[in-house]
Amino acid sequence: MRKVYLDHAATTPILPEVLKSMMPYLKEVYGNPQSLHGWGDGAREAVEYARVRVSGLIGAQSEEIIFTGSGTESNNFAIKGLAAALQSKGAHIVISAIEHYSVLHSARTMEKQGFELTLVPVDKYGIVDPEEVARSIRKDTVLVSIMHANAEVGTVQPIEKIAKIVKESGAVFHTDAVASAGNIPVDVQKLGIDALSLAGNQFYGPKGVGALWLKQGVRIMPFLEGGVQEGGRRAGTENVPAIVGLGKAAELAKRDMGARIEQFSALRDRLIAGLPPHIDHMFLTGHPTQRLPGSASFCFEFIEGESMLMLLNHQGIAAASGSACTSRALKASHVLLAMGIPHEVAHGSLLFSLGLSNTAEDIDHVIEVLPPIVNRLRAMSPLYAKFSKEKNGRK
Amino acid sequence: MRKVYLDHAATTPILPEVLKSMMPYLKEVYGNPQSLHGWGDGAREAVEYARVRVSGLIGAQSEEIIFTGSGTESNNFAIKGLAAALQSKGAHIVISAIEHYSVLHSARTMEKQGFELTLVPVDKYGIVDPEEVARSIRKDTVLVSIMHANAEVGTVQPIEKIAKIVKESGAVFHTDAVASAGNIPVDVQKLGIDALSLAGNQFYGPKGVGALWLKQGVRIMPFLEGGVQEGGRRAGTENVPAIVGLGKAAELAKRDMGARIEQFSALRDRLIAGLPPHIDHMFLTGHPTQRLPGSASFCFEFIEGESMLMLLNHQGIAAASGSACTSRALKASHVLLAMGIPHEVAHGSLLFSLGLSNTAEDIDHVIEVLPPIVNRLRAMSPLYAKFSKEKNGRK
Repeated sequence: MRKVYLDHAATTPILPEVLKSMMPYLKEVYGNPQSLHGWGDGAREAVEYARVRVSGLIGAQSEEIIFTGSGTESNNFAIKGLAAALQSKGAHIVISAIEHYSVLHSARTMEKQGFELTLVPVDKYGIVDPEEVARSIRKDTVLVSIMHANAEVGTVQPIEKIAKIVKESGAVFHTDAVASAGNIPVDVQKLGIDALSLAGNQFYGPKGVGALWLKQGVRIMPFLEGGVQEGGRRAGTENVPAIVGLGKAAELAKRDMGARIEQFSALRDRLIAGLPPHIDHMFLTGHPTQRLPGSASFCFEFIEGESMLMLLNHQGIAAASGSACTSRALKASHVLLAMGIPHEVAHGSLLFSLGLSNTAEDIDHVIEVLPPIVNRLRAMSPLYAKFSKEKNGRK
Repeated sequence: MRKVYLDHAATTPILPEVLKSMMPYLKEVYGNPQSLHGWGDGAREAVEYARVRVSGLIGAQSEEIIFTGSGTESNNFAIKGLAAALQSKGAHIVISAIEHYSVLHSARTMEKQGFELTLVPVDKYGIVDPEEVARSIRKDTVLVSIMHANAEVGTVQPIEKIAKIVKESGAVFHTDAVASAGNIPVDVQKLGIDALSLAGNQFYGPKGVGALWLKQGVRIMPFLEGGVQEGGRRAGTENVPAIVGLGKAAELAKRDMGARIEQFSALRDRLIAGLPPHIDHMFLTGHPTQRLPGSASFCFEFIEGESMLMLLNHQGIAAASGSACTSRALKASHVLLAMGIPHEVAHGSLLFSLGLSNTAEDIDHVIEVLPPIVNRLRAMSPLYAKFSKEKNGRK
């Protein structure tokens, strides 16, 4: 059976070149970077070299990079750590309604600790209107966090415009770039932001490693406390092999970004154009053009995303419904709901996320396999039966 | 030059068998365990199998294991998460004076958030007297955290006795077993505790992974918030290869524990017996018998641990002074100070921590190399010159 992995938003594989760069640190260079001896020196130098590579991907200074254990940790650290550092100045936080749960739940936790929280709405494409951000900012707003790109619907936000507004207010601006960094150009100077989260397993680096970029001079309270690692800002023995892999993945992403974007966009557009002629009552979610090159997301009315996933899996195709982090919770995506998609329709979401291994044949396979799956599920769907009956009644 | 790694307390290498178990998950089985397809299934099964193996190491139920990114994260999670879950019942926390900074600093952070904190003292061997714990417990004490073994001085605490006292009071009892789990028998039932932290890179597993064991029914507030991973208690894409490695390392540690303890204790005792005949004004730190099998820690008067480390490194020997997490901060160890060792003497600490690669020849090499290093440093030491002058004056 043909095997087609179209769930790169959940996690990418590790590129062979990346794994090769990690191997010495999984074997002979096993020292603790904090140790005062040769074993530690080799590990420490590798971490610092990776720091340079990661900073290079986003146009930052290497000393502004703090390595973390995941994109989720970077987001928890950013929201909780920045809010805590800023609380003497004010206690109002602004985020968008479609943030990843690691931002949303962290902000809710700060709300319980006395902060006020405003959720900025999005339009039907999942776009945050910079004017809405401007309206949400108050005198006591100290922190704004708007994601760069949304993994579920692919929409890329006008961060540069939003950042300009936020910076005029004097608030600190963080962006969750976990879905975008390594996949589309991200330049922290050009974006005009203060803090940014990224994760290794979103661009062919390993799991278990992420980074928080913090502009020089921006204060943060440590989240993981203990030892003096990462300039005293993130404790815990450095995960040297994973950090090295993140560095290598960052270097490759920078080098190959143009080619990857070209490959992914072509496949994405092939899928977006190829499915609707064969399937009724489906629509693209997210913005038609302002979207991640590798993201093709849809809603299929009258059926459940989970059922489609299982039948696709039987055909060797991996996709997602909702976000990877919540798909097992079987809840309608808060992202789709915020975009005004009704609850029952949001349940029928599918996300195909493209990667380096994918070909036009993979896409054509999906275009062949998915329509009969949708038909089969609709034939069993009470919602669809009701709809058909009403439609026929109207005739 | 002979290379002798005696810094296993800072980090152990990954055993070849452990790395072998990880490789499929660094290569072809790259799915996200939360995904609803075959790629996710393989990853999820591996994580659950590792959970069984880790629980087996400590006599727990597999569903009581929460995977984390490090021992430091486990400790932050335990202290902050348990305190937050318990705060409606009371606001007093008890820890020992020699806890790892990840426990101590987390407890200090909870102090800033309204908790009261009591630090239980230790005796000159670094032992916590269970009676002192009993005296420190109040009606509003909700959480007690006393480490199982101290990495810097090797002392193993009478956790079973302490736990009995804590449990009689109704408080939740956590133990930081990062230095002990995988190295000496740890049975959570026998110890009678509620929560326990451990880390992979302390017993030949990979860096970047740890676990928090929580007894069924013990409530905790999530620390890393976001997705629904780890039963909703620890968000972030599971670091599958590292978790698999932790599982394999746990299995091997359980299988080989007797032989390892025998090997390490013999080498430790050879070093502890072998150095004093050649070096004056030195003493063992920590308890003479209630100590980790792989730990030989000393203070050398009139000289600095850092200088000894550098000269040992020139001879190909890796050791530590203070803890790995703080050695670069060049501060006197709070552990040694709490044991009543004067500030200037605490600066002259050395820790040799043994591992699987070490042999009697390694130990003999240290016994040969260290005395001239100590003599050389003392010849340059103003403190030693002053001491010698006073001693001669007394003659």
